Amino acid sequence: MVLERKLVLDDTDTYCPVRATLALLGQKWVPHIIYELMDGKRRFNDLAHRIGGCNSRTLRDRLKNLEDLQVISRTIIAVMPPWVEYELTPKGRQLGQALEELQRWGKTYMVEPCI
Amino acid sequence: MVLERKLVLDDTDTYCPVRATLALLGQKWVPHIIYELMDGKRRFNDLAHRIGGCNSRTLRDRLKNLEDLQVISRTIIAVMPPWVEYELTPKGRQLGQALEELQRWGKTYMVEPCI
Repeated sequence: MVLERKLVLDDTDTYCPVRATLALLGQKWVPHIIYELMDGKRRFNDLAHRIGGCNSRTLRDRLKNLEDLQVISRTIIAVMPPWVEYELTPKGRQLGQALEELQRWGKTYMVEPCI
Repeated sequence: MVLERKLVLDDTDTYCPVRATLALLGQKWVPHIIYELMDGKRRFNDLAHRIGGCNSRTLRDRLKNLEDLQVISRTIIAVMPPWVEYELTPKGRQLGQALEELQRWGKTYMVEPCI
Protein backbone atom coordinates (compact mmCIF):
# COMPACT_ATOMS: atom_id res chain seq x y z
CA MET A 1 0.00 0.00 0.00
CA VAL A 2 1.49 3.30 -1.10
CA LEU A 3 -0.91 5.71 0.60
CA GLU A 4 -3.40 5.14 3.39
CA ARG A 5 -6.84 4.65 1.95
CA LYS A 6 -8.75 6.83 4.40
CA LEU A 7 -6.41 9.77 3.73
CA VAL A 8 -6.98 9.92 0.00
CA LEU A 9 -10.76 9.60 -0.18
CA ASP A 10 -13.07 12.56 0.12
CA ASP A 11 -16.37 12.61 2.01
CA THR A 12 -18.11 10.82 -0.85
CA ASP A 13 -15.43 8.06 -0.82
CA THR A 14 -13.99 9.31 -4.09
CA TYR A 15 -10.25 9.34 -4.67
CA CYS A 16 -8.90 12.91 -4.49
CA PRO A 17 -5.49 13.73 -6.08
CA VAL A 18 -4.94 16.74 -3.83
CA ARG A 19 -5.59 14.71 -0.68
CA ALA A 20 -3.28 12.03 -2.03
CA THR A 21 -0.56 14.66 -2.43
CA LEU A 22 -1.02 15.86 1.14
CA ALA A 23 -1.09 12.26 2.40
CA LEU A 24 2.20 11.60 0.63
CA LEU A 25 3.83 14.70 2.09
CA GLY A 26 2.40 13.89 5.50
CA GLN A 27 4.46 10.68 5.66
CA LYS A 28 7.35 11.23 8.01
CA TRP A 29 10.66 11.90 6.17
CA VAL A 30 9.10 12.27 2.73
CA PRO A 31 9.47 16.07 2.46
CA HIS A 32 12.99 15.75 3.84
CA ILE A 33 13.93 13.07 1.27
CA ILE A 34 12.62 15.21 -1.58
CA TYR A 35 14.42 18.24 -0.22
CA GLU A 36 17.76 16.40 -0.04
CA LEU A 37 17.36 15.11 -3.59
CA MET A 38 16.70 18.60 -4.98
CA ASP A 39 20.50 19.06 -5.04
CA GLY A 40 21.04 16.02 -7.28
CA LYS A 41 21.41 12.26 -7.10
CA ARG A 42 22.49 10.58 -3.87
CA ARG A 43 23.61 7.15 -2.78
CA PHE A 44 21.57 5.40 -0.12
CA ASN A 45 24.16 5.83 2.64
CA ASP A 46 24.75 9.46 1.82
CA LEU A 47 21.00 10.11 1.91
CA ALA A 48 20.66 8.25 5.24
CA HIS A 49 23.49 10.32 6.67
CA ARG A 50 22.05 13.65 5.52
CA ILE A 51 18.56 12.87 6.70
CA GLY A 52 19.78 11.55 10.04
CA GLY A 53 17.46 10.00 12.63
CA CYS A 54 15.52 7.93 10.08
CA ASN A 55 16.40 4.26 10.39
CA SER A 56 17.51 2.37 7.26
CA ARG A 57 14.42 0.24 7.08
CA THR A 58 12.03 3.19 7.17
CA LEU A 59 14.15 5.08 4.68
CA ARG A 60 14.16 2.09 2.34
CA ASP A 61 10.34 1.84 2.65
CA ARG A 62 9.87 5.52 1.88
CA LEU A 63 12.22 5.36 -1.09
CA LYS A 64 10.37 2.31 -2.41
CA ASN A 65 7.07 4.20 -2.08
CA LEU A 66 8.44 7.24 -3.87
CA GLU A 67 9.84 4.99 -6.58
CA ASP A 68 6.43 3.30 -7.02
CA LEU A 69 4.89 6.75 -7.40
CA GLN A 70 7.60 7.66 -9.94
CA VAL A 71 8.70 10.61 -7.83
CA ILE A 72 12.23 9.23 -7.67
CA SER A 73 14.22 6.80 -9.77
CA ARG A 74 16.63 4.18 -8.50
CA THR A 75 19.74 3.17 -10.41
CA ILE A 76 22.07 0.31 -9.54
CA ILE A 77 25.67 1.14 -10.38
CA ALA A 78 27.17 -2.26 -11.15
CA VAL A 79 30.77 -1.75 -10.18
CA MET A 80 32.33 -3.75 -7.34
CA PRO A 81 31.06 -3.14 -4.74
CA PRO A 82 27.79 -2.13 -6.47
CA TRP A 83 25.83 0.83 -5.16
CA VAL A 84 22.38 2.31 -5.53
CA GLU A 85 21.65 5.89 -6.52
CA TYR A 86 18.41 7.78 -6.06
CA GLU A 87 17.36 10.75 -8.12
CA LEU A 88 14.21 12.86 -8.51
CA THR A 89 12.31 12.24 -11.73
CA PRO A 90 10.94 15.31 -13.59
CA LYS A 91 7.68 14.68 -11.69
CA GLY A 92 9.64 14.63 -8.41
CA ARG A 93 11.45 17.87 -9.22
CA GLN A 94 8.14 19.59 -9.81
CA LEU A 95 6.88 18.33 -6.47
CA GLY A 96 10.06 19.68 -4.88
CA GLN A 97 9.40 23.06 -6.44
CA ALA A 98 5.78 23.10 -5.26
CA LEU A 99 7.02 22.13 -1.81
CA GLU A 100 9.45 25.05 -1.75
CA GLU A 101 6.53 27.47 -1.85
CA LEU A 102 4.95 25.78 1.13
CA GLN A 103 8.26 25.65 2.95
CA ARG A 104 8.77 29.36 2.37
CA TRP A 105 5.32 30.05 3.76
CA GLY A 106 5.97 27.89 6.83
CA LYS A 107 9.31 29.52 7.53
CA THR A 108 7.77 32.97 7.27
CA TYR A 109 4.53 32.44 9.10
CA MET A 110 4.73 29.37 11.32
CA VAL A 111 7.90 30.29 13.16
CA GLU A 112 6.25 30.40 16.56
CA PRO A 113 5.38 26.94 17.89
CA CYS A 114 1.68 26.30 17.25
CA ILE A 115 1.11 23.51 19.75
CA MET B 1 -4.38 22.68 20.98
CA VAL B 2 -4.00 24.01 17.47
CA LEU B 3 -1.71 21.35 15.99
CA GLU B 4 -0.85 17.88 17.22
CA ARG B 5 2.43 17.99 19.09
CA LYS B 6 3.95 14.86 17.60
CA LEU B 7 3.31 16.10 14.06
CA VAL B 8 5.24 19.34 14.43
CA LEU B 9 8.40 18.11 16.17
CA ASP B 10 11.37 16.76 14.26
CA ASP B 11 13.47 13.76 15.32
CA THR B 12 15.34 15.90 17.86
CA ASP B 13 12.02 17.06 19.39
CA THR B 14 12.50 20.53 17.96
CA TYR B 15 9.55 22.47 16.58
CA CYS B 16 9.69 22.55 12.77
CA PRO B 17 7.70 25.24 10.86
CA VAL B 18 7.53 23.14 7.69
CA ARG B 19 6.14 20.13 9.55
CA ALA B 20 3.67 22.45 11.26
CA THR B 21 2.52 23.65 7.84
CA LEU B 22 2.02 20.08 6.62
CA ALA B 23 0.25 19.16 9.87
CA LEU B 24 -2.12 22.08 9.38
CA LEU B 25 -2.89 21.12 5.79
CA GLY B 26 -3.27 17.49 6.81
CA GLN B 27 -6.26 18.36 8.99
CA LYS B 28 -9.38 17.24 7.23
CA TRP B 29 -11.25 20.13 5.48
CA VAL B 30 -8.49 22.69 6.00
CA PRO B 31 -7.27 22.79 2.36
CA HIS B 32 -10.89 22.86 1.23
CA ILE B 33 -11.73 25.77 3.55
CA ILE B 34 -8.74 27.76 2.29
CA TYR B 35 -9.65 26.95 -1.29
CA GLU B 36 -13.23 28.16 -0.86
CA LEU B 37 -12.05 31.39 0.75
CA MET B 38 -9.65 32.17 -2.12
CA ASP B 39 -12.68 33.61 -3.98
CA GLY B 40 -13.42 36.10 -1.21
CA LYS B 41 -15.24 36.37 2.11
CA ARG B 42 -18.00 33.92 2.99
CA ARG B 43 -20.66 33.57 5.64
CA PHE B 44 -20.59 30.50 7.82
CA ASN B 45 -23.64 28.88 6.24
CA ASP B 46 -22.46 29.59 2.74
CA LEU B 47 -19.08 28.05 3.55
CA ALA B 48 -20.73 24.99 5.13
CA HIS B 49 -22.88 24.57 2.05
CA ARG B 50 -19.97 24.86 -0.40
CA ILE B 51 -17.74 22.51 1.56
CA GLY B 52 -20.53 19.96 2.04
CA GLY B 53 -20.12 16.84 4.17
CA CYS B 54 -18.31 18.61 7.00
CA ASN B 55 -20.57 18.93 10.04
CA SER B 56 -21.06 22.38 11.60
CA ARG B 57 -19.17 21.55 14.74
CA THR B 58 -16.06 20.34 12.91
CA LEU B 59 -16.22 23.31 10.56
CA ARG B 60 -16.48 25.69 13.50
CA ASP B 61 -13.44 24.00 15.15
CA ARG B 62 -11.37 24.25 12.00
CA LEU B 63 -12.32 27.88 11.48
CA LYS B 64 -11.41 28.66 15.10
CA ASN B 65 -8.02 26.98 14.58
CA LEU B 66 -7.37 28.91 11.40
CA GLU B 67 -8.40 32.10 13.15
CA ASP B 68 -5.99 31.36 16.04
CA LEU B 69 -3.23 30.87 13.48
CA GLN B 70 -4.23 34.15 11.80
CA VAL B 71 -4.83 32.40 8.51
CA ILE B 72 -8.41 33.69 8.42
CA SER B 73 -10.24 36.56 10.08
CA ARG B 74 -13.74 36.47 11.47
CA THR B 75 -16.05 39.47 11.38
CA ILE B 76 -19.44 39.76 13.05
CA ILE B 77 -21.86 41.80 10.99
CA ALA B 78 -24.12 43.36 13.60
CA VAL B 79 -27.35 43.79 11.70
CA MET B 80 -30.49 41.91 12.69
CA PRO B 81 -30.12 38.97 12.43
CA PRO B 82 -26.34 39.25 12.87
CA TRP B 83 -24.05 37.08 10.80
CA VAL B 84 -20.42 36.02 10.79
CA GLU B 85 -18.09 36.40 7.84
CA TYR B 86 -14.79 34.62 7.28
CA GLU B 87 -12.00 35.91 5.10
CA LEU B 88 -8.40 34.94 4.39
CA THR B 89 -5.81 37.24 5.94
CA PRO B 90 -2.79 38.21 3.77
CA LYS B 91 -0.99 35.28 5.45
CA GLY B 92 -3.88 33.00 4.51
CA ARG B 93 -3.89 34.19 0.88
CA GLN B 94 -0.22 33.37 0.60
CA LEU B 95 -0.90 29.90 1.97
CA GLY B 96 -3.67 29.52 -0.60
CA GLN B 97 -1.24 30.45 -3.35
CA ALA B 98 1.40 28.00 -2.12
CA LEU B 99 -1.31 25.36 -1.98
CA GLU B 100 -2.29 26.02 -5.58
CA GLU B 101 1.13 24.83 -6.72
CA LEU B 102 0.71 21.62 -4.80
CA GLN B 103 -2.83 21.20 -6.05
CA ARG B 104 -1.65 21.65 -9.63
CA TRP B 105 1.01 19.02 -9.08
CA GLY B 106 -1.50 16.58 -7.57
CA LYS B 107 -3.99 17.08 -10.38
CA THR B 108 -1.28 16.49 -12.97
CA TYR B 109 0.57 13.60 -11.41
CA MET B 110 -1.59 11.87 -8.84
CA VAL B 111 -4.62 11.30 -11.02
CA GLU B 112 -4.48 7.52 -10.78
CA PRO B 113 -5.54 6.24 -7.36
CA CYS B 114 -2.40 5.48 -5.34
CA ILE B 115 -3.91 3.17 -2.74
